[in-house]
Amino acid sequence: MGLIVQKYGGSSVADVEKIRTVARRVIDTKAAGNDIVAIVSAMGKTTDNLIALAKQVVDNPPDREMDMLLATGEQQSIALLAMAIQSMGHGAVSFTGPQVGILTDGSFSRSRIKAVKEDRIRAELDKGNAVIVAGFQGASIDGQITTLGRGGSDTTAVAVAAALGAEMCDIFTDVDGVYTADPRVVPDARRLKAIAYEEMVELASLGAKVLHSRAVVLAWKYQTPLRVRSTFKQDEGTLVVNDTQALDMERFVVSGVAVDKNQAKISLIGVPDKPGVAATIFGILGKAGIVIDMIIQNVSRDGRSDISFTVPRTDLHKTMAASAEICQETGTEEALSDENIAKVSIVGIGMQSHSGVASQMFEALANQNINIQMISTTEIKVSCVIELDRADDAARALHHQYGLSGNS
Amino acid sequence: MGLIVQKYGGSSVADVEKIRTVARRVIDTKAAGNDIVAIVSAMGKTTDNLIALAKQVVDNPPDREMDMLLATGEQQSIALLAMAIQSMGHGAVSFTGPQVGILTDGSFSRSRIKAVKEDRIRAELDKGNAVIVAGFQGASIDGQITTLGRGGSDTTAVAVAAALGAEMCDIFTDVDGVYTADPRVVPDARRLKAIAYEEMVELASLGAKVLHSRAVVLAWKYQTPLRVRSTFKQDEGTLVVNDTQALDMERFVVSGVAVDKNQAKISLIGVPDKPGVAATIFGILGKAGIVIDMIIQNVSRDGRSDISFTVPRTDLHKTMAASAEICQETGTEEALSDENIAKVSIVGIGMQSHSGVASQMFEALANQNINIQMISTTEIKVSCVIELDRADDAARALHHQYGLSGNS
Repeated sequence: MGLIVQKYGGSSVADVEKIRTVARRVIDTKAAGNDIVAIVSAMGKTTDNLIALAKQVVDNPPDREMDMLLATGEQQSIALLAMAIQSMGHGAVSFTGPQVGILTDGSFSRSRIKAVKEDRIRAELDKGNAVIVAGFQGASIDGQITTLGRGGSDTTAVAVAAALGAEMCDIFTDVDGVYTADPRVVPDARRLKAIAYEEMVELASLGAKVLHSRAVVLAWKYQTPLRVRSTFKQDEGTLVVNDTQALDMERFVVSGVAVDKNQAKISLIGVPDKPGVAATIFGILGKAGIVIDMIIQNVSRDGRSDISFTVPRTDLHKTMAASAEICQETGTEEALSDENIAKVSIVGIGMQSHSGVASQMFEALANQNINIQMISTTEIKVSCVIELDRADDAARALHHQYGLSGNS
Repeated sequence: MGLIVQKYGGSSVADVEKIRTVARRVIDTKAAGNDIVAIVSAMGKTTDNLIALAKQVVDNPPDREMDMLLATGEQQSIALLAMAIQSMGHGAVSFTGPQVGILTDGSFSRSRIKAVKEDRIRAELDKGNAVIVAGFQGASIDGQITTLGRGGSDTTAVAVAAALGAEMCDIFTDVDGVYTADPRVVPDARRLKAIAYEEMVELASLGAKVLHSRAVVLAWKYQTPLRVRSTFKQDEGTLVVNDTQALDMERFVVSGVAVDKNQAKISLIGVPDKPGVAATIFGILGKAGIVIDMIIQNVSRDGRSDISFTVPRTDLHKTMAASAEICQETGTEEALSDENIAKVSIVGIGMQSHSGVASQMFEALANQNINIQMISTTEIKVSCVIELDRADDAARALHHQYGLSGNS
């Protein structure tokens, strides 16, 4: 008998019938002799609808009131799930994040979890209840309701699992595991039996929307076993752990191919080449709350250079505003933006010990006549920015190149 | 400079445009030099929609989870109102009931307010903010989210006004005051400038849906001046106070006529006429949580009597189930129900000192050929149960009888 934390995303509780399916899964897990805590997201498009409603009131809604508004989404789904479980004759009790002691740092719209109080959850588990907790939300020490940002429900689940020392944190979603590539793009993509935390962090950050990277980092830190599974299939899914070799003998140098189509590229042209300019530029962007991904600086010519970087496309408007300030402050000539890009990446712990992985990637792209605009590498990842229209071709070519296909 | 508490009902915040109108009213009140606390209900049909959603999950949703679900309605509207006020350049901060210290007795779905903590509201008022508080909800001492039952937002407003010693508690709604009768039924109904707490309690209980009777009782107890006003008109509305003579010289013996079409009549036929039977009957009904309104017992014949009583029509199903138990327990012959009834009432402090008020009522109804099925009287009220189809005719006849019309 162990303690299992399960997280159900918005698509898993999108309607009443799906909530009933989730209720049955919770009950089955309990019937198998486990204590269970279920973390639930807002139903389907609820969060998007609330954001749209707020934007009808004001273009740029204040973060505190936005958190107040958005926190209602999960509060609705936990109540409905607890009702569904009770209607099937089993004990269940729901709690909001603030109520159950998800303590955050108090920053609105993108809070970090500081601590999870265990006592209230434990008390209800001891009574034999399934405990249903609202994901994505918590309260600061002075009682302000704060949300954790998009994907925050995954983080809630891992934080609760870590605090309670859960045997397993199951992330239930509408896909049945982590694949070597997006199966909609690469038809012969293969589901991985296991993946290392480190690889999963990269894949999550790179736009494989299965799992939020913050949650993976937290699980890695606390060594919480994580599993990605389908809500609607009985299936083992993909395990996220430290040592994948023991679990999946068929591992390749590259574990997966990821495509991120939600990026935009900004190029600062004619940046004066003097000390402190880069600090000024990225200081201004940081102050504006813009998260930069890749940065490329070309060689200086005539005392000026060009700097390109990528940002989430949703931040493009904000970034161009900040870029205008950058041009004025630093004497940069102009700022250009390009939304017509995608980032395609290969990830794998194995590549640390294999030379030539990156060059194989460049070759595969060249064979497809795909032009590489930017390159960025880490020890377990190579990313290239390419033209948006060629992203799917690139994913298929790379998947084939590294022998990831199911029948390889 | 005083402190004003304003309550805005669901119809006042039914859409974004109406929320903006409310925001302007709050700002105007503040601009006139007042501190302001606004209590807000859920938007339009939100609560009804959430109830419908829960009923899709389970026919009879558990109260605790229902409160968890319903509390989200007001949380959404407070956030949106605070956003709207801020977007107009004024300070505003929203709080849920649990957050701001609306302490309840902890009973789900029909909590009573035990106390209102002032410190958090005062701190925000001192900062110059308009304070927006969710109506209808609070938390028990152990942090359970509880709702106050339908009409609870009025009660929240009065409780907050009483706790803060507010100068005025304005109840904004979609009608512009309290009328001598429902203007949709009685076209020449007149708006009252003022009404006594006592009269308002009766009218509220009798189905004049302007104001919840619980809220009026609370205002009466704490001597909080109350005013019923229209959200969408600039108008003084109707003041609810102790002494109405000073405020409205044109008062009549009867202040108003009320019609309640949401009642049902149950008749227990052949009830054994022995000691303790009535106690058994109303004990069973009480245990089932059914609120009885009028009770009539006819004279005993052959050791048996008939007992009739009225209940809210929504409780009819529950009541008939309880009545089956009553028949079995007491040897009562049968229980009959009649949904085809209405209760028509006249209310007025003045009638205490006037004889003949009741007989005038019976005469007016007889002149319309309306049959009286049950009669109940208090010191300031006479109610008759009549056939549902004749309720509006009765209201018009009584309104005319007591000279309440605008041009009288």
